[in-house]
Amino acid sequence: MAISVTILGSNSAIPTANRFPTAQVINVNQSYYLVDCGEGTQMQMRKYGIKIQRIKAIFITHLHGDHYFGLIGLLNTMHLLGRQSSLELHGPSELLEILELMFKHADTRLQFDLNFRSIEENSAGKIYEDGQVAVSNFPLKHRIKCSGFRFDELPKMRKIKKSALDAYQVPIEKIKNIKEGADFELSDGTIVRNEVLTSDPLPAKSFAFCSDTKYTESILPYINKVDLLYHEATFTEEFKERATKNLNSTAKQAATLAEKAEVGQLIIGPHSAR
Amino acid sequence: MAISVTILGSNSAIPTANRFPTAQVINVNQSYYLVDCGEGTQMQMRKYGIKIQRIKAIFITHLHGDHYFGLIGLLNTMHLLGRQSSLELHGPSELLEILELMFKHADTRLQFDLNFRSIEENSAGKIYEDGQVAVSNFPLKHRIKCSGFRFDELPKMRKIKKSALDAYQVPIEKIKNIKEGADFELSDGTIVRNEVLTSDPLPAKSFAFCSDTKYTESILPYINKVDLLYHEATFTEEFKERATKNLNSTAKQAATLAEKAEVGQLIIGPHSAR
Repeated sequence: MAISVTILGSNSAIPTANRFPTAQVINVNQSYYLVDCGEGTQMQMRKYGIKIQRIKAIFITHLHGDHYFGLIGLLNTMHLLGRQSSLELHGPSELLEILELMFKHADTRLQFDLNFRSIEENSAGKIYEDGQVAVSNFPLKHRIKCSGFRFDELPKMRKIKKSALDAYQVPIEKIKNIKEGADFELSDGTIVRNEVLTSDPLPAKSFAFCSDTKYTESILPYINKVDLLYHEATFTEEFKERATKNLNSTAKQAATLAEKAEVGQLIIGPHSAR
Repeated sequence: MAISVTILGSNSAIPTANRFPTAQVINVNQSYYLVDCGEGTQMQMRKYGIKIQRIKAIFITHLHGDHYFGLIGLLNTMHLLGRQSSLELHGPSELLEILELMFKHADTRLQFDLNFRSIEENSAGKIYEDGQVAVSNFPLKHRIKCSGFRFDELPKMRKIKKSALDAYQVPIEKIKNIKEGADFELSDGTIVRNEVLTSDPLPAKSFAFCSDTKYTESILPYINKVDLLYHEATFTEEFKERATKNLNSTAKQAATLAEKAEVGQLIIGPHSAR
């Protein structure tokens, strides 16, 4: 699979000795991204053998502590380990205010570029893209402003049929075009159609992360047909009233959304003390 | 022993999967205090079976992340678990600024009274006392302002000799005075000296915590004759120059201080990656 997700923590607000608050590493063809960063995320990354410095971008859903209290420590460790490459950080604008205050009072000047991108309330759309993935955000409904994120693997190039290339003696410099879908013209003017030379790539995969949120169908367009949906649902149906009051979802509500959005697979988190 | 220390973390700035940054729980006759609170302290407390809500006061040496990044999470958990009793928090004034900003953006209003006491730069003296212990702070020399802490168990009352009390038919209402050192007068006017009725209590114990600091004999009066000294020393003698540059100590320097201050026992931390 071209997108894999490592759940470093999925506990609700109160961590236990062995269960950590929310953090997930998204691996898209060996490019690594982090969604949320609860306390202890850096320890969990070490435990799971995820190299801290390989994280290219971090996305924070909202400023409840169980979703970001580990961020300052992770950034500090990146700094102390001599990180050179820049890091993109997406989150509510107040996050930058908090980080800057903490760095200031520790007299820490980061050695790497931390490129902060503020996520505006009720905004939606693409916020990040590199060679592997496009990430978009969408608004969730929680007690404080909160974003979900969708990761879409970029379409892959077509797969070369080596035997066909040999047969038509395709020169190396043409291969990139052919991977992108171009036909190939023989010296006698005959056109060899691309489908003869290539096969379909693996379909691009997608993943969506919905943090603490009340049930809302407004997110359906954003999570539509994702291959994998992680939806937090602190409560079972039995506690529906309390879920609604706290602007959280029940597991059944998450399943309903998943069905309506025709998602491939649903993972439900976090696990609360209940 | 009437004071015991549980080292929850003693790693230097970069935590690993199994080694946590600085935090120590000081137990004085079953009253619990926390010195420093690196990331993951609350998980470590659960692992070691220390009840989070029993912590009466927290003392933060300085605002480098490995000494306090776990504090906000611990306070948040105390709040979520419904803490009612007040908590004293001692640390640099900037700490309150940071905590208030984080609580504000999480829209969290603590359910318990957090009584913050600012430690002024270069101050020294008693900052806390309850029925069990007096805590004083003293200035350390580090890259940012930094305090050490000394815990002195309060003198205990004298130990009653039950057989002597029975022999002289001492009434119950006199016992408190006698424990405090009073003599006892018999009905015929004879004075029974306190030493006949009581024996010496166990001597009051003391503990001092010296966080990241360069070698300085200015702390000798403050750590004088403590039973137990925890002194951080990130470097061995081989790295003395680097220790001096970073305003840290070597292990040998910590031992020298311990000897000059005539301390009972010395524990050296933290363990760095070296």
